Amino acid sequence: MLNNEYYTQDQHGPYEFYALGDFLLESGETLKNAQLAYAMHGELNEAKDNAILFTIMFSGTSKNMEHYIGPGKALDPDKYCIILPNQLGGGLSTSPHNIDGAQAMAGFPIVSIGDDVVAQHQLLTEYFGIQELQLVTGWSMGAQQTYEWAIRYPDMVKRAAPIAGTAKCTSHDSLYVDVFSEALKSDSEWNKGNYADPYACGDGLKRLAHVFALMGFCPEFYKQEQWKRIGFDSMQEMLSEFWEAWFQPMDPNSLLTQAKKWQEGDSSRHTGGDLVKALSGIKAKTYVIAFEDDMFVPVEDCKFEQHLISNSELKVIPSFMGHFAMLGLLNEDFKLIDSLFGALLSCDVS
Amino acid sequence: MLNNEYYTQDQHGPYEFYALGDFLLESGETLKNAQLAYAMHGELNEAKDNAILFTIMFSGTSKNMEHYIGPGKALDPDKYCIILPNQLGGGLSTSPHNIDGAQAMAGFPIVSIGDDVVAQHQLLTEYFGIQELQLVTGWSMGAQQTYEWAIRYPDMVKRAAPIAGTAKCTSHDSLYVDVFSEALKSDSEWNKGNYADPYACGDGLKRLAHVFALMGFCPEFYKQEQWKRIGFDSMQEMLSEFWEAWFQPMDPNSLLTQAKKWQEGDSSRHTGGDLVKALSGIKAKTYVIAFEDDMFVPVEDCKFEQHLISNSELKVIPSFMGHFAMLGLLNEDFKLIDSLFGALLSCDVS
Repeated sequence: MLNNEYYTQDQHGPYEFYALGDFLLESGETLKNAQLAYAMHGELNEAKDNAILFTIMFSGTSKNMEHYIGPGKALDPDKYCIILPNQLGGGLSTSPHNIDGAQAMAGFPIVSIGDDVVAQHQLLTEYFGIQELQLVTGWSMGAQQTYEWAIRYPDMVKRAAPIAGTAKCTSHDSLYVDVFSEALKSDSEWNKGNYADPYACGDGLKRLAHVFALMGFCPEFYKQEQWKRIGFDSMQEMLSEFWEAWFQPMDPNSLLTQAKKWQEGDSSRHTGGDLVKALSGIKAKTYVIAFEDDMFVPVEDCKFEQHLISNSELKVIPSFMGHFAMLGLLNEDFKLIDSLFGALLSCDVS
Repeated sequence: MLNNEYYTQDQHGPYEFYALGDFLLESGETLKNAQLAYAMHGELNEAKDNAILFTIMFSGTSKNMEHYIGPGKALDPDKYCIILPNQLGGGLSTSPHNIDGAQAMAGFPIVSIGDDVVAQHQLLTEYFGIQELQLVTGWSMGAQQTYEWAIRYPDMVKRAAPIAGTAKCTSHDSLYVDVFSEALKSDSEWNKGNYADPYACGDGLKRLAHVFALMGFCPEFYKQEQWKRIGFDSMQEMLSEFWEAWFQPMDPNSLLTQAKKWQEGDSSRHTGGDLVKALSGIKAKTYVIAFEDDMFVPVEDCKFEQHLISNSELKVIPSFMGHFAMLGLLNEDFKLIDSLFGALLSCDVS
């Protein structure tokens, strides 16, 4: 086990663990003694009908979405019980660097979006006894999970807000994942995932960070030197102290487990590859939220899927931050997203 | 000298050489015994006033732009003398792999857009005796040269058509160059430019090719599987037989020499960093040509500079090919660009 201080309660807590046991994956392999790490804000009411599920993006943890939760915000813990489950392989839940044996490191199995959703469903129904979710939302890979939830458990999901992500990963998005995965795996320490140090592949992680910087913020963000608004004096400082600093402490195998999951994300697998059928089965009142000039997930790709969902609306948020508007580093982005959560939660779905 | 069969008359000819001699670069260094390789179509008339200069993009040669030249096309060699000078460091002109001594390979000096333009000016004026150019055009790094020409020799350039490129490289574009340069330099054979084989760094070149594929064509190109229209059965086949095949035979030091030149391209260096002053000094009738959804050089960046040029128009070409519309792989792209050349050449500039 390669202990990595990044993936700790200290850095990302508090979070709890739910024991999934030996967990059968879509691939047919069983993840041994699997643990689902989740954070929870607010309390489940007696009727168990005030729950919100907020799923997590690539390279992120439940901690990174906490700014959307708080008294006075749409995701108000005084009213709702908000559960944020961390991805299998994502670092806090069972992941390549926190298990021993044959499934450690490069031996970690392929995990799918469906595996996450089934594990989360088990937590919510078997552990908490929840049968109804007021809202399922998530950003990027979180949107992939949101779609999977709304498609697989249509009667349980009352409202859905997939944000800047797709039900089916597009070819271009898949190529993006290839490019940043190759940037990481080109590291001289990579050794096909059997590196020797918990902070290995620093050069590869730096290159990956630059690919994210390139595609993550809009060209206009750079042109207008908007990095000043998020606290940096120069582009170089932002690259180093924001992007590189974000990825540098992470575990390469964990990132690549998530990357593969991202790339293979396809909620139409449960309808024989028929995406129209999959999306038209969604019963939730759905806001498909897209970010203008998002280079990861163009608005057009979100719009394409939104049109296939009956009770849905497309909400396009203008932002210089592109895909990373969700981080809410610019207050206007946070406010718009928060207000969409509020508007969706106030929609009558009875 | 690392001979590379790619950079030969056989592959890219016919072209001629003009001896620049010991050529003083902007950096202060002298490029020894420099040779400028250029192709020529049509004949210079007696008045020497029928010349067109067509400059060359990153990783390309004069051969790659030949499809715009021919009887019945706007760039008609029966009417015009069309000269295509290859970049210094670009592979055919003096480059890291075709010289010996201290300036070979990693010892090759930094070359600028201004160096190319001064070398081209010397060829045109001293060798050919040309004092007037009916048109200067070029795509991408060719656009950088076009801007530099129109700014430095305003009385000589009657018309200018910078295509999908900028007078001053933007921060985002510079980050793009960093990303693909890092992809190449991460190759285990790179050895800081002192690799042992003329076809070294195959893995790095493949990674670089994927970065180009990601940013070169639009997401919509991939979504609509437009690769079928350019002769490929699958995305994977296109990646391999188009993008990887394009870069695989090239010399890494040559590509990185061009990359550095691209990144540092800034025609405002001759006006003390004042881009407004630089662009407002252009006298040429100018078509600033941009490609819709170009991820290298967004339309907005072209528009920004076009507004600063007095006698100019912005021409936006819709294409699924993004930045690479210029290759004319889709016939509608070729036709639109050809017609813009025709329209510009028919503008009265007397």
